[in-house]
Amino acid sequence: MSVRSEKTIVDIAEELNLSVSTVSRALNDHPNISAKTKDRVKKMARKLGYRPNAMAAGLRNNKSKTIGLIVPRISMFYPATISTIIQNKLMEYGYNLIICQSNDSLEQEIALANTLYSARVDGLAVSATLYTTDFSHFDIFKQQNIPLVFFDRVPTKDYNVKVIKGDDFLGGFLATEHLIEQGCKDIVHISGPLTCNLYKERLAGYKEALQKYKQPFKKPRVFFHELTRENAWATAEKIFSQKPIPDGIFATNDTTAITLLEYCRKNGINVPEECKIVGYSNDPRTEIVTPAITSVDQYPATMGERIVAALMDLIQAKHPPAYRHSQEIVPIQLIARESSAGASKKKK
Amino acid sequence: MSVRSEKTIVDIAEELNLSVSTVSRALNDHPNISAKTKDRVKKMARKLGYRPNAMAAGLRNNKSKTIGLIVPRISMFYPATISTIIQNKLMEYGYNLIICQSNDSLEQEIALANTLYSARVDGLAVSATLYTTDFSHFDIFKQQNIPLVFFDRVPTKDYNVKVIKGDDFLGGFLATEHLIEQGCKDIVHISGPLTCNLYKERLAGYKEALQKYKQPFKKPRVFFHELTRENAWATAEKIFSQKPIPDGIFATNDTTAITLLEYCRKNGINVPEECKIVGYSNDPRTEIVTPAITSVDQYPATMGERIVAALMDLIQAKHPPAYRHSQEIVPIQLIARESSAGASKKKK
Repeated sequence: MSVRSEKTIVDIAEELNLSVSTVSRALNDHPNISAKTKDRVKKMARKLGYRPNAMAAGLRNNKSKTIGLIVPRISMFYPATISTIIQNKLMEYGYNLIICQSNDSLEQEIALANTLYSARVDGLAVSATLYTTDFSHFDIFKQQNIPLVFFDRVPTKDYNVKVIKGDDFLGGFLATEHLIEQGCKDIVHISGPLTCNLYKERLAGYKEALQKYKQPFKKPRVFFHELTRENAWATAEKIFSQKPIPDGIFATNDTTAITLLEYCRKNGINVPEECKIVGYSNDPRTEIVTPAITSVDQYPATMGERIVAALMDLIQAKHPPAYRHSQEIVPIQLIARESSAGASKKKK
Repeated sequence: MSVRSEKTIVDIAEELNLSVSTVSRALNDHPNISAKTKDRVKKMARKLGYRPNAMAAGLRNNKSKTIGLIVPRISMFYPATISTIIQNKLMEYGYNLIICQSNDSLEQEIALANTLYSARVDGLAVSATLYTTDFSHFDIFKQQNIPLVFFDRVPTKDYNVKVIKGDDFLGGFLATEHLIEQGCKDIVHISGPLTCNLYKERLAGYKEALQKYKQPFKKPRVFFHELTRENAWATAEKIFSQKPIPDGIFATNDTTAITLLEYCRKNGINVPEECKIVGYSNDPRTEIVTPAITSVDQYPATMGERIVAALMDLIQAKHPPAYRHSQEIVPIQLIARESSAGASKKKK
């Protein structure tokens, strides 16, 4: 359409033959304005479709009662579950949630940070793209004292902000230790881009477990890909085309673990007898495949609740938040299932 | 925090010793303002963290270049996929997407409609809750000539708005016809709340197929539930506790179909030999379970593209959109898999 006539407090003032400042104060429940005038102004505001956020000059301290959330992909189980928990928890505080997905594109993340800033959110929670290493597009929130919390995929210590994350080092360690305890002697790790803290830490946990159990760390036994289904299939082809095949695989996400399982089934490789598989995130899909896949639960409900608690603390604080780096760790738990069961039968 | 000093054009004017109207016109690239002044004003606006959407009095015709989307749940495959398609397509037009989920709560849907209105979206796409029968909370968008499109879960004809939906009647018909062709003689249908157009139409398609093939429609063979995993399990218990068990089940969503399959496996009921199963939506999970589940593909990519095309048509139209009911149908396709394969071996 060519013209959308956005109504402002000037229109309300004209319609009611009042001054703009009277209208502004009426909308803000200023004590000097009579109840009758407030009522007339508010009725006219509704009639004209005036938006409270169309702030007129001089009107300050406006709260949108809306929190913004940026996640890599809403279709992924972990961010999708966290989003729902955040939304339900925010409702208890009278806040709404608007969600944006970066699609793991830094360019989109920058655009969405600006969009949510312009949408006047009262707080922002972010899980960054795989490739975000410079976080300066979020500086505007800090400058304007708008509560900002990062979770899961978070900045390093030099970016001063509140960070809530899972214990990815421990998760990587436990996943690998579990495979060793089940008898694996040649464990492959499939990792993601190391620009992202998660994969770096899970890889470090994998190395630590190998060291503890005196198994050699071999660089060619670590594969990197972008954690999509297509990439996982290509990685599976690469891994199983080399002999001997590994007797255990720790995949840093469940999509990869599920794709590996499908590959093994299509190619007659018995899971867990010939090769055991462990994934990460405890996506419900790990339970519906045969055999069910061992994974690492990241407690998304706890994560969501802590994000809301952190945002509400910042919003309700008497003083603007001091932006310094602080880190909170959400526990993880290994959930053992059939894909890694029993002693390894592979002859070495 | 106690005070967030939101910057307005008044602050910019004070800082630069200019009139508010000059600042307003400079920000809007008014031809009467010099390039130098525009530059000074815009620099100061950035420095103060002024938000373009904090519209000062008299500033009109503002475009946020943002589209709002309300879906029932972002964790569901179909809306999640559509959201991503919409977002990618909108990017080509220079628009961002903000997503809200109603959690199938009418109360939340009403709150989110207001939130997105206040966030100044340039258009809104909505898939309604299971229980939305009164759509008047969206009237404000029509009154303000903001493009509004409904998809998937849509209002009835008496609400004047553009509607894009799948061919749910045909989907219900084809799913049932397929089971009949595979030899089923006692087909149960699991439906959702009939306040929602989808389930009403799929049920009508089920009835039509029975009629065409001269199988009797029996009311007790239709089960209703709210389509969650927990409810699906309870419905499975109900269905299989009665003898004889059905030789075919058409479930109106894939979560129900997957849960049915799990129930059958845990209880020694062979799928497809004893009971065939067909789901709806072609969720990728239907492919990773054993046996893989027959489902109805709803072409989410086509749906997402048509939604964006409809919004852009309305945004770019020379005249405000005439809000009358118009309906566009996206095709569907049955994807046959093992869960419904072969002739029925059940003796009748």
